Amino acid sequence: MKEVIVGIDVGGTNSPFGFVDRDGNILGKGSIKTSDFEIFDDYLDAFLKEVDNVSGTLNDVIIKGYGIGAPNGNYYTGSIDNAPNLRWKGKIMFSDMVKSKTGLPAYLTNDANAAAIGEKLFGNAKDMNDFIVITLGTGLGSGIFCGGQLLYGSTGFAGELGHTIVIEGGRICGCGRQGCLETYASATGIVTSMVELLSISSKDSVLKRFSESEIDSKLIYSSALAGDKLAKEVFRFTGEILGRALANAVAFSSPEAIFLFGGLANAGEYIFVPTIKYMEENILNNFKGTVKVLPSGLKENTAAILGASALCWNEMNK
Amino acid sequence: MKEVIVGIDVGGTNSPFGFVDRDGNILGKGSIKTSDFEIFDDYLDAFLKEVDNVSGTLNDVIIKGYGIGAPNGNYYTGSIDNAPNLRWKGKIMFSDMVKSKTGLPAYLTNDANAAAIGEKLFGNAKDMNDFIVITLGTGLGSGIFCGGQLLYGSTGFAGELGHTIVIEGGRICGCGRQGCLETYASATGIVTSMVELLSISSKDSVLKRFSESEIDSKLIYSSALAGDKLAKEVFRFTGEILGRALANAVAFSSPEAIFLFGGLANAGEYIFVPTIKYMEENILNNFKGTVKVLPSGLKENTAAILGASALCWNEMNK
Repeated sequence: MKEVIVGIDVGGTNSPFGFVDRDGNILGKGSIKTSDFEIFDDYLDAFLKEVDNVSGTLNDVIIKGYGIGAPNGNYYTGSIDNAPNLRWKGKIMFSDMVKSKTGLPAYLTNDANAAAIGEKLFGNAKDMNDFIVITLGTGLGSGIFCGGQLLYGSTGFAGELGHTIVIEGGRICGCGRQGCLETYASATGIVTSMVELLSISSKDSVLKRFSESEIDSKLIYSSALAGDKLAKEVFRFTGEILGRALANAVAFSSPEAIFLFGGLANAGEYIFVPTIKYMEENILNNFKGTVKVLPSGLKENTAAILGASALCWNEMNK
Repeated sequence: MKEVIVGIDVGGTNSPFGFVDRDGNILGKGSIKTSDFEIFDDYLDAFLKEVDNVSGTLNDVIIKGYGIGAPNGNYYTGSIDNAPNLRWKGKIMFSDMVKSKTGLPAYLTNDANAAAIGEKLFGNAKDMNDFIVITLGTGLGSGIFCGGQLLYGSTGFAGELGHTIVIEGGRICGCGRQGCLETYASATGIVTSMVELLSISSKDSVLKRFSESEIDSKLIYSSALAGDKLAKEVFRFTGEILGRALANAVAFSSPEAIFLFGGLANAGEYIFVPTIKYMEENILNNFKGTVKVLPSGLKENTAAILGASALCWNEMNK
């Protein structure tokens, strides 16, 4: 019998899940449509039923627990607290309900924390005790390891680097404040920067042929690859803001490495080179040359499932 | 026999030390003059001799180890690395040398980290796993507990909040960069702010009767106490900068409390009230009302010795 953890990635639209063994192999996969379920109880029943279905197709697999990655996930309470992109309002006691329905251990945390645990167990941080994973998606999430432990803080919500204010009076953020890092360094942020730059620059750019609503981070990347100067400049600017913020983060926790993960990180050198340059330029002397900025060791399409399962494996190894 | 740790606070001028029992009682004290010793070996011999002398005056005390708080102290190597305010250049292998001369355990870290461990063992953080101690002296130091452990990071130098850049292109810092938090929020920083404000404000102030070199943080405090508006304004400004920086620190580690310690913290409500106000105004919603900003539970004149000894007690409890 092969022991597995079911890792589930609760998204606004879909909730893919996988059966993950101790070495990070995904032995089976499934998915349910999150947005189909107005009531959480129905969602949970559908999820567990689908787990049974997939389980039936696999040979000799025994489920040892559940790991859940979810927006606004609180590790301490195992609950999803007022997630703006989910239909279930208030506090959803996800892991308690899984435990009571299955009799198995269940742990929950937010997506970026799950990504960090995934990096530690199955990715490029296996031998590291101090590192930060930055997820560059629609927003900017972060999962932080300090002294070999994931940092939860007193509330369970530690590691909100996307909501450190980097420019006072800067861009309006979804959190209601201004100048948060994620309004600049994210797939959304780089689009805003691109639109701003196109409107003020007299330089030519292939992007001027597109309407604002057509511009996304992939188009900016392909334009930069094709040599577009304004697209390159926007990556440099994004890396500058991110690099400066990382220099401050290093003064806090002195990580061995910072991993960049998710959509924007796929732009490779266009984002890594300026980020590293501005981080090193703005870092305290003690830390110069001590921090590696690296791509994640997890594949984007399975990272969330691996991360969620890693959370549970990690707890069971404690 | 009462078991004690010798805790020593290595300062540029003096090195006071104390015999501290497991409950934080100081059973005996001594001091040697750091600046008298050009060669570290001679300093160390004089220190250990003085420990013997003081020990001889105490009844039934047995030394179990040494805890050392030192500028630029590196916990991992037990060394003082290029401390600008000490005569010994390069890397001083302080704790290894204590161990080899005494045969006892010896641990070393920097002053702010020692203050944080002191707060945890003997002060107001006994029941806390996640907290930050901010020392507001000539500079701004910080010691950070995450998940019940002091944060050292990969280099041993984590927790340099004084050197997070809070104002781009701001004041020149001793570290060679610009806009570091400690150039604003420290005894030195508030004096600079006061001098700047006096030079541009047409308002009356008792401080205008003093020359720049006569203005120190105590004078600013006594002037504020006496109702001086410009002195009060400078405290508000300092609290604004500090509060904003703390809001960002909270997004990183979500501490249960932040302790303010040292010279400037003695100004009580003048510094606490604006710091708390601006921290709360700038904090992410998740964290509003979750962080206590508190005075240290250690007395200023013994905190460094208690902190240094706490480092060693803490290691021996592991």
